[in-house]
Amino acid sequence: MSVARIAVVAGDGIGTEVTAQARKVIEAVLPGTEFDDYDLGARFYNRTGEVLPQAIEDELARHDAILLGAIGDPSVPPGVLERGLLLKLRFDFDQYVNLRPSKLWPGTTSPLAGIKPGEIDMVVVREGTEGLYVGAGGVLHKDTPAEIATEESLNTRYGVERVIRDAFARAERRDRRHLTLVHKTNVLTKAGSLWARTFAAVAAEHPDVTTEYQHVDAASMFMVSNPQRYDVIVTDNLFGDIITDIAAAVTGGIGMAASGSVNPERKYPSTFEPVHGSAPDIAGKGIADPAAAILSASLLLEHLGHADEARRVSEAVAAEVASRTPGADLRTAEVGDRIATAL
Amino acid sequence: MSVARIAVVAGDGIGTEVTAQARKVIEAVLPGTEFDDYDLGARFYNRTGEVLPQAIEDELARHDAILLGAIGDPSVPPGVLERGLLLKLRFDFDQYVNLRPSKLWPGTTSPLAGIKPGEIDMVVVREGTEGLYVGAGGVLHKDTPAEIATEESLNTRYGVERVIRDAFARAERRDRRHLTLVHKTNVLTKAGSLWARTFAAVAAEHPDVTTEYQHVDAASMFMVSNPQRYDVIVTDNLFGDIITDIAAAVTGGIGMAASGSVNPERKYPSTFEPVHGSAPDIAGKGIADPAAAILSASLLLEHLGHADEARRVSEAVAAEVASRTPGADLRTAEVGDRIATAL
Ligand SMILES: CC(C)[C@H](C(=O)O)[C@@H](O)C(=O)O
Ligand SMILES: CC(C)[C@H](C(=O)O)[C@@H](O)C(=O)O
Repeated sequence: MSVARIAVVAGDGIGTEVTAQARKVIEAVLPGTEFDDYDLGARFYNRTGEVLPQAIEDELARHDAILLGAIGDPSVPPGVLERGLLLKLRFDFDQYVNLRPSKLWPGTTSPLAGIKPGEIDMVVVREGTEGLYVGAGGVLHKDTPAEIATEESLNTRYGVERVIRDAFARAERRDRRHLTLVHKTNVLTKAGSLWARTFAAVAAEHPDVTTEYQHVDAASMFMVSNPQRYDVIVTDNLFGDIITDIAAAVTGGIGMAASGSVNPERKYPSTFEPVHGSAPDIAGKGIADPAAAILSASLLLEHLGHADEARRVSEAVAAEVASRTPGADLRTAEVGDRIATAL
Repeated sequence: MSVARIAVVAGDGIGTEVTAQARKVIEAVLPGTEFDDYDLGARFYNRTGEVLPQAIEDELARHDAILLGAIGDPSVPPGVLERGLLLKLRFDFDQYVNLRPSKLWPGTTSPLAGIKPGEIDMVVVREGTEGLYVGAGGVLHKDTPAEIATEESLNTRYGVERVIRDAFARAERRDRRHLTLVHKTNVLTKAGSLWARTFAAVAAEHPDVTTEYQHVDAASMFMVSNPQRYDVIVTDNLFGDIITDIAAAVTGGIGMAASGSVNPERKYPSTFEPVHGSAPDIAGKGIADPAAAILSASLLLEHLGHADEARRVSEAVAAEVASRTPGADLRTAEVGDRIATAL
């Protein structure tokens, strides 16, 4: 296997700080990896007025993966960078599997009473290229009493089936082999029926995976009352956006929440990034926790076929987090160093 | 004020049991109230093949309010009763304010560590007649690899403004006077912009209410990490469906979750019902907790202009719940009797 070529989009705020640690850790387990830095995000936008020039996107496309920190700054109107960079990459690079593991790690605390580390361990496989995220819809008679605004959710058998297949394959590789479909079939009867029929068809090919269906409102409640019940969840783009944030919250917040926007065929690069944002309030102080960024690097390694290295990285993160003194100050670079040294 | 005429749709499973208590309590505080029973729900559907005959809907329309228990049974295909009865009433009776208070009551326990009764006290004002609930969309090339399914969210200035106005009015009547708009403006740019612009316009008329905006994913996380921050929330139909279930979960589950589907002008009857379902597993045993149904009756009384009676009922429920011995068995009728007697 040739060395990996990784595009680094460190981004804004604490993005640069945590990404430096993730990169350090990849260098430690996969020496020789090539990194190319791309200056994108709020600073780039404020300087150039552009979010993602085509020439840069073409360069990104020639990498094996993208390691992203965080983008966003109060100086940029909300939505511009999210849509122009994050969502654009998901669509242009066909990142149809949006992968979000949630684990209650030793050394972390759930806001839920009586839940102990190890008890929550789930992966949400969120569809990444369809649904309400396609941007279809319009506004008529804007700023008049007659204004209407529409949003259209577009769902294809093609798009639904491929992400469901991916979720079954992931469920099959886990101990519990349980897959929950989350949707809202009782109200969204058209898309819901497509999801439910496709799920049933693919389930028939996977008798070793137990399956279950839940409405998104019920699932949101169970995420709080009984998150232990979940193993793998597959759901659409918007529902996935919401339930992964509940999952992050019940596993102690976004401090440990990693994510990958994955093109499983590796025809295009996949993007790996912590779920947290650029946190302008603590940026530049060197106190951001790089754990989620480093766990995202672990997902990146696994995606590129380095399962062993991926496992070692996530175990090293787990050990570092478990060894922390509760309440003690944290230095971003020291956490990265400790993990890199342990490897 | 003439006596109220209330249509009772006790429904299925524990619906009949808890509704009997809610009715008992209304009789105690508002003697002379007229009740008309309507046999609708799974039993009616299985007997007649109909969900809501037009003649019955016309009769319901001639009442001041509808007291609903719960509908649903495994014998009925999912979605049929929900859409044919609950959602149909919301649309036909223009119940555009879907009201869902969430309070952590003394005597109940939040699954969240360290949160004490009294600390969570919010009302979600969920839009009830627009958005993805309108049923627009379609399926093409069904059951072929080329299948597509669409769902369309329809939003009007008219519909958005009236529910936002209602939410501001409610926020104004509360101590904290804080209103949070929840949407997903960074992705749903068309509907999001309509909601945000309308919210800003109405906010300008209410300088006494402090306001805030949150994306639905962030709000879902805060519901778990910091639900104390919320006072009144206004949001669209689908987001409201999801966040009210998280709110119910963090205030101890659906045991105390009441709701009203309200037509504020009282041009049509409003529906009041507990958030919980028909619970076929415990139906007929007389052990269902009627608290949520009785709190729904309190919302009904308030809607009909009996603010004093409404307050007395909710205080009586609170007192009864606070007096319970944790873990002790509960008898539905005894709870209703205790509350009715206290009044
Ligand atoms: C930033 C935003 C567009 C994005 C989303 O909605 O998908 C984010 O919330 C996420 O979950 O990655
Ligand atoms: C039963 C269902 C159609 C309904 C909804 O989605 O509104 C329910 O979940 C609710 O919240 O009242």
